[in-house]
Amino acid sequence: MPVGTAGTVKAVHQRELKEDIDASIILGNTYHLYLRPGTSVLKSAGGLHKFNGWDRPILTDSGGYQIFSLAAQRKLNAEGATFKSHIDGSKHFFTPENVMDIQRIIGADIIMAFDECTPYPATVKEATISMELTHQWLKRCVSRFNETDPWYGYNQSLFPIVQGSVYPELRKRSAEFIAQVGAEGNAIGGLSVGEPAEEMYAMTALVNAILPKDKPRYLMGVGTPVNLLENIALGVDMFDCVLPTRNARHGLLYTSEGIINIRNEKWKDDFTVIDPNGPSFVDSQYTKAYLRHLVVCNEILAAQIASVHNLAFFIWLMKEARQHIIDGTFMSWKNSMVKKLAQKL
Amino acid sequence: MPVGTAGTVKAVHQRELKEDIDASIILGNTYHLYLRPGTSVLKSAGGLHKFNGWDRPILTDSGGYQIFSLAAQRKLNAEGATFKSHIDGSKHFFTPENVMDIQRIIGADIIMAFDECTPYPATVKEATISMELTHQWLKRCVSRFNETDPWYGYNQSLFPIVQGSVYPELRKRSAEFIAQVGAEGNAIGGLSVGEPAEEMYAMTALVNAILPKDKPRYLMGVGTPVNLLENIALGVDMFDCVLPTRNARHGLLYTSEGIINIRNEKWKDDFTVIDPNGPSFVDSQYTKAYLRHLVVCNEILAAQIASVHNLAFFIWLMKEARQHIIDGTFMSWKNSMVKKLAQKL
Repeated sequence: MPVGTAGTVKAVHQRELKEDIDASIILGNTYHLYLRPGTSVLKSAGGLHKFNGWDRPILTDSGGYQIFSLAAQRKLNAEGATFKSHIDGSKHFFTPENVMDIQRIIGADIIMAFDECTPYPATVKEATISMELTHQWLKRCVSRFNETDPWYGYNQSLFPIVQGSVYPELRKRSAEFIAQVGAEGNAIGGLSVGEPAEEMYAMTALVNAILPKDKPRYLMGVGTPVNLLENIALGVDMFDCVLPTRNARHGLLYTSEGIINIRNEKWKDDFTVIDPNGPSFVDSQYTKAYLRHLVVCNEILAAQIASVHNLAFFIWLMKEARQHIIDGTFMSWKNSMVKKLAQKL
Repeated sequence: MPVGTAGTVKAVHQRELKEDIDASIILGNTYHLYLRPGTSVLKSAGGLHKFNGWDRPILTDSGGYQIFSLAAQRKLNAEGATFKSHIDGSKHFFTPENVMDIQRIIGADIIMAFDECTPYPATVKEATISMELTHQWLKRCVSRFNETDPWYGYNQSLFPIVQGSVYPELRKRSAEFIAQVGAEGNAIGGLSVGEPAEEMYAMTALVNAILPKDKPRYLMGVGTPVNLLENIALGVDMFDCVLPTRNARHGLLYTSEGIINIRNEKWKDDFTVIDPNGPSFVDSQYTKAYLRHLVVCNEILAAQIASVHNLAFFIWLMKEARQHIIDGTFMSWKNSMVKKLAQKL
């Protein structure tokens, strides 16, 4: 899922997202959308779909992660979280209840439970307290969700989130707790926050053995192309990450042959197209030398080209993975791909 | 002509320039392209058309204006201009001869004479000296141009530039000097540099009475929609200006009904489309409230949307002007349009 924090996937037109990248769902972020444009504008607009003109599904992050990574003077208690806006310092209070209400107003098709994303590293005690808070909040999210109706006439699904840091016992408890909620999909949070990849994979494997197999399993905030394939091998169905767009803005391109840092001098007079195997129009329309020039000159078009390229590549990779699963050739394909994907070209 | 200083019209894909905006020619800038990517890369690429993938005509500014507006420690003498790069402080020397050579390498379809853009205000004496330097340089440009061949197998045209500040006698002398060169097109420089619009129009009228009517007359660096229509009435055929794209990046939209400052609070919950009469996809796909949100959040997509909108509007306005000239209804149409175009909505 391309990340569209403030209702826009950065540097990409909605038309490109749909026609050139073929994203089937994008993300929005509750914390950002609540602050700007705010619930009043979103309600008047008829929800985020109407506001940004994206007529395919949207999933919203609950804002828990942003409160702890962006906001100032955050204070947490059992009731909820107070914080100051990173934009204007204004004070706000998020609770499991009002975060459900806000996501009802945003009108996301999939709305996320309000959780605490346990920081890494955390002691067992810290991780336990944090996980238990997330579980308590989940009960309140589910109650509020069940008591309220969608605003705009279409169904919304609530996904709960497994926490538990890198402690197998906690992850097991959390996954069991989440599984019994019976939600339409389930998420794994608190990974890709600084732990080694091997610990992430171990936790994903453990949790996926418990979460229902017939419901989508969504690994939040992950990751590199290799991370995606390894986690698919462990049963993950959905991902989101700022990586393809954020790294695009720094000139990093992901391709089926490896990673290109387009700033490098070596691309200065490479007049071959950006990615001869790439699925989007930018791959065949622009050359590496031209894109390097744009990046070096800090031109907006650089971010536009690289973002479309990276997103189209990630979506292509996911479609390939799906087809290989269907064909029964996923594991051998995955093993050959991961060798190439992390190479620096 | 949309301005593509460094080989990119800022925030706009080449595909959009062609298919959505329908620009028939764009600008590049000799000063910028000489510094980055440099003539070596451009020559290896096979010229700017190959480098940036734009297969319709390109015109290049000679760099005279940028040396005086951007570069540091510029020193001018009869031979040429030394200056330090605004990027890395490196020292360079531009002469009428090497500016022709550089534009040959860039491969622009229309290349501009190397001139001194007389600053405003200037005394009669300053303006005279400056104009005479431009005329001397022009002779050397023409010689070098005639002695050299295009690099890439297609024809290039050299346009000389009228100077003379706001002094009718100087403008007359300069226009007569330029007219006798017999170039395939002629430009008017040194206007829209701070003088009142009425002085600009007076100079355009005077110069256009002298420049050949059967060759395109190009007014450099102009301007607002009203400026364009008034100058068309005075016989101008070509314009370039950063205004539609630069002001787009500040949230200023030009429409057939007037000017929208999309940052204004009043657009916060205006969910009508950006411009119901607008010719491009952004006009009907995005709302004013959404674009305002993007501008307020400093999102890249804001620059993308507003730039496509403004350029599409300017090109539409020029097509309308042409059609009204053909139909013999230009003056009445122009008079009704200028009343609306400068209104603030």
